[in-house]
Amino acid sequence: MSWLNDREALLSQVRAQMHEKRYQHTLGVAETARQLALQYGADPDKAELAGFLHDYCKCWPVERMRDVLIRHDLPADLLNGDKELWHSFAGAIVIQTEMNVSDPDIIQAVRYHTTGRDGMTLLEKIVCVADYIEPNRIFPGVETIRSLASQDLDKALAQALGSTIQHLIQQKKTVYPLTLLAYNDLVSGLDT
Amino acid sequence: MSWLNDREALLSQVRAQMHEKRYQHTLGVAETARQLALQYGADPDKAELAGFLHDYCKCWPVERMRDVLIRHDLPADLLNGDKELWHSFAGAIVIQTEMNVSDPDIIQAVRYHTTGRDGMTLLEKIVCVADYIEPNRIFPGVETIRSLASQDLDKALAQALGSTIQHLIQQKKTVYPLTLLAYNDLVSGLDT
Repeated sequence: MSWLNDREALLSQVRAQMHEKRYQHTLGVAETARQLALQYGADPDKAELAGFLHDYCKCWPVERMRDVLIRHDLPADLLNGDKELWHSFAGAIVIQTEMNVSDPDIIQAVRYHTTGRDGMTLLEKIVCVADYIEPNRIFPGVETIRSLASQDLDKALAQALGSTIQHLIQQKKTVYPLTLLAYNDLVSGLDT
Repeated sequence: MSWLNDREALLSQVRAQMHEKRYQHTLGVAETARQLALQYGADPDKAELAGFLHDYCKCWPVERMRDVLIRHDLPADLLNGDKELWHSFAGAIVIQTEMNVSDPDIIQAVRYHTTGRDGMTLLEKIVCVADYIEPNRIFPGVETIRSLASQDLDKALAQALGSTIQHLIQQKKTVYPLTLLAYNDLVSGLDT
């Protein structure tokens, strides 16, 4: 992958999109995704790159993300829904145009890293779990997810997405349907 | 409605489908649904009848419910999903053939009384809430839902369905997607 030849340029470009705390989180996700890839048999370079890129648009102004989504005709339920989800879908588009990423595995891992979806690929699961458990993350329940991730990626992700759904309901917020489909898919496949 | 002319026959037929505790629950739902209909401007007779009929198949053997669902070509996600949902969808079919119910409002209220759905009718909401709060019901949080139901039907139902989703996730069970759509729809419409 060409970015490997210019890692500094890539990181510099990523860093320019976000504040320092988000950049440290990004580095944490990339390293955690690499470790999970090594553990679960995915491509560690792809996992790390997806980690570097996953929050590319996270700190962009909402209007800039909205423009990307509208230009690319993304579904109305996204545009009318929780803006917290926009950066993933916008990011999957923008990394293609601004960073010349063409690998569909990486693009999909960025696209679904917040919502999940049913039928997630191994790389998608890895980036999603890494986003929950990278070392800078502190929230109630993170240790349970970390512990599960060391044993069973699907259990970790089912736990993480289930907690997210419960948290959103606790706050009387809507839940993006894909997230429930991801949760259901994972729970259905567990043997316990 | 003809059943009003032979209420005893109707109740006798309903009672024959279930054990005594379920029958007492059924009477509780019917009475609560009538009260909610009076409060919220729905037809109290329809609400009561839907209450009498809502659990018609609840105590049937699973195989008998499965036969009904397969004969009527219901979706695979129901047949492969939580059997707790079957009695509602089977019931909506069986009350048409065994009880000569033809009113679509009542049939839909029975069909969606467990899962909910997006775009629920007033009668559907009433039967669903009544099923949660009838006087025999005792579970953590029931008083909150009862209290909300006396003020705002949508808030009560959002609270009830939200609690159900959280409870299912707590038990690591799948959540039927229609239930999330119902919850999202209700929460989106709330002003708080």
